[in-house]
Amino acid sequence: MSDFDDFAGFRARLARAPGPDAAAAEGAAARNAQLTKPPAALGRLEDMAAWYAAWRGDPRPAITAPQVIVFAGNHGVAALGVSAFPAEVTVQMVANFRAGGAAINQLARLAGARMDVHALDLDRPTADFTQGPAMTEAECLAALQSGWDAVDAGADLLVVGEMGIANTTSAAAIACALLGGEASDWTGRGTGVDDAGLSVKTQVVAEGVARHAGGDGIDMLARLGGREIAAMAGAIARARALRIPVILDGFICCAAALCLAKTESSALDHCIAGHLSAEGGHARLLQALGKDPVLSLGMRLGEGSGAALAMQVLKGAVACHSGMATFAEAGVSEG
Amino acid sequence: MSDFDDFAGFRARLARAPGPDAAAAEGAAARNAQLTKPPAALGRLEDMAAWYAAWRGDPRPAITAPQVIVFAGNHGVAALGVSAFPAEVTVQMVANFRAGGAAINQLARLAGARMDVHALDLDRPTADFTQGPAMTEAECLAALQSGWDAVDAGADLLVVGEMGIANTTSAAAIACALLGGEASDWTGRGTGVDDAGLSVKTQVVAEGVARHAGGDGIDMLARLGGREIAAMAGAIARARALRIPVILDGFICCAAALCLAKTESSALDHCIAGHLSAEGGHARLLQALGKDPVLSLGMRLGEGSGAALAMQVLKGAVACHSGMATFAEAGVSEG
Repeated sequence: MSDFDDFAGFRARLARAPGPDAAAAEGAAARNAQLTKPPAALGRLEDMAAWYAAWRGDPRPAITAPQVIVFAGNHGVAALGVSAFPAEVTVQMVANFRAGGAAINQLARLAGARMDVHALDLDRPTADFTQGPAMTEAECLAALQSGWDAVDAGADLLVVGEMGIANTTSAAAIACALLGGEASDWTGRGTGVDDAGLSVKTQVVAEGVARHAGGDGIDMLARLGGREIAAMAGAIARARALRIPVILDGFICCAAALCLAKTESSALDHCIAGHLSAEGGHARLLQALGKDPVLSLGMRLGEGSGAALAMQVLKGAVACHSGMATFAEAGVSEG
Repeated sequence: MSDFDDFAGFRARLARAPGPDAAAAEGAAARNAQLTKPPAALGRLEDMAAWYAAWRGDPRPAITAPQVIVFAGNHGVAALGVSAFPAEVTVQMVANFRAGGAAINQLARLAGARMDVHALDLDRPTADFTQGPAMTEAECLAALQSGWDAVDAGADLLVVGEMGIANTTSAAAIACALLGGEASDWTGRGTGVDDAGLSVKTQVVAEGVARHAGGDGIDMLARLGGREIAAMAGAIARARALRIPVILDGFICCAAALCLAKTESSALDHCIAGHLSAEGGHARLLQALGKDPVLSLGMRLGEGSGAALAMQVLKGAVACHSGMATFAEAGVSEG
């Protein structure tokens, strides 16, 4: 009972995704113009509220059911020495997520968000992409489907995060393969690899790109990605089908999103960028996606942490939009 | 029963303000190093949590009683045509704050903050500072005392906001008088004054500075400020005496804070900058204060709105710091 039988089926799903609601967008703009503040004085908050209203099809929306999903996966390239942490940390951190001890648990709770954790075949890492494709089509489809199924149809805002030792290597390879440039443009220190590790990591990215580049976003997702990255892509696509707005997290989340955008150019219209990560290639990746980050706080943790924090800003934007009095209601003179 | 009888008494209060708690700072740093994340991966959130812990004297603090105070005042210079809105909007917006209809009401509620509104002699605007001092020493002291008294001694985080038609004119004059440069460097469009109004406003600022410059921050506060600006300064000073951390808002709040910093250089050590306003001179003012804004969202509303939104980021920082598991607690391998 899968929602897509092959990559062609997934691409077709992306191609027939719904757009925002024009009537709600108009209603939201009309409401915004009447609120008790000088025109545009809430700056980007006004744009965020308008975007949210349009996607929810409601000119005066509320955020009452946000969802954070953390996907975890293991990577064949971890064995090559590309990370500052050993691969067993992935499963240890999954336990930490489940026990409520990670950063994302605190930030999801603060945002009033439901949090789900999906560990994807942690005992079966993807293949080493310097030797062959990271995943078969069937494996990638299964991961996409996991992400697709993880989205709560009743959610009204989605953040997807990840955990997977070596996954900045995978994300860098995806970005380099789809956007060009040198491997070193996209390869950063991740969780804090040293100079020698960074050199190895850059070489691994370069080898992966040399072997696999040429194909669309879904092709690169399978050949260079990881299960958690594919699951994030699947969840972002499902959110679009359900018109659930998404706040993108850092480098790895944006690499997953890039796979969708390079397959169907409008696939991320329901997404905003939550933050600018300190991970080297993220600024360039956001620029390629045409997304201006809400926050810039030097975070580089993943897990969905930056996006979960940006949820608070969006909640503020929507609270102002939907909760403020109009000039007429408040008896305030207009300028 | 005032806390300071004259400006000299207020200056003495500033001079004997307490500093942060070194033991709590050490304890917070030690805790941070053990949390289940790569070193420094939460970026600025880690600095914010450390700052908050040090000022609260608690290595593992919680934010449970934030306070937002909005001060309102009227300005003699409003009659000169420096604003896009008529002066009666000040009292109308006070009613809107009290009814819960303004942006700050929504943002304070979202942050779980108590919100207080203090309207300061709205029927008695300050004097036109192009003709003489805006306030007498007694008037300025009364406003400082109003701010001082408005702080809840049980609060654990403070935001001060303002409402006062023409108060960006006053703030620009204060900044120009205390920091130098041309009137046009500091004069922006405020709530949205047109080109002709901006020209008048710049001239008013220049005249005020020419007449009154020369003196410390408290002198300029009285001669060029407004009651709500003085009250903000009084509240920021009281928060320091109580070791309550403060998040500064936009241009007007920072002009109030500047009056303290130019009187006692360490007077703002318990403050961080909540956001970068779209109001012209704010970036320059923040630079002079040595404060890096948490948010940059093009907001320019005042009321404490940007700072109240930044409360959410600080709450996230403190929630991570105090709520996350350590490596040992979670059984996660360190890098």
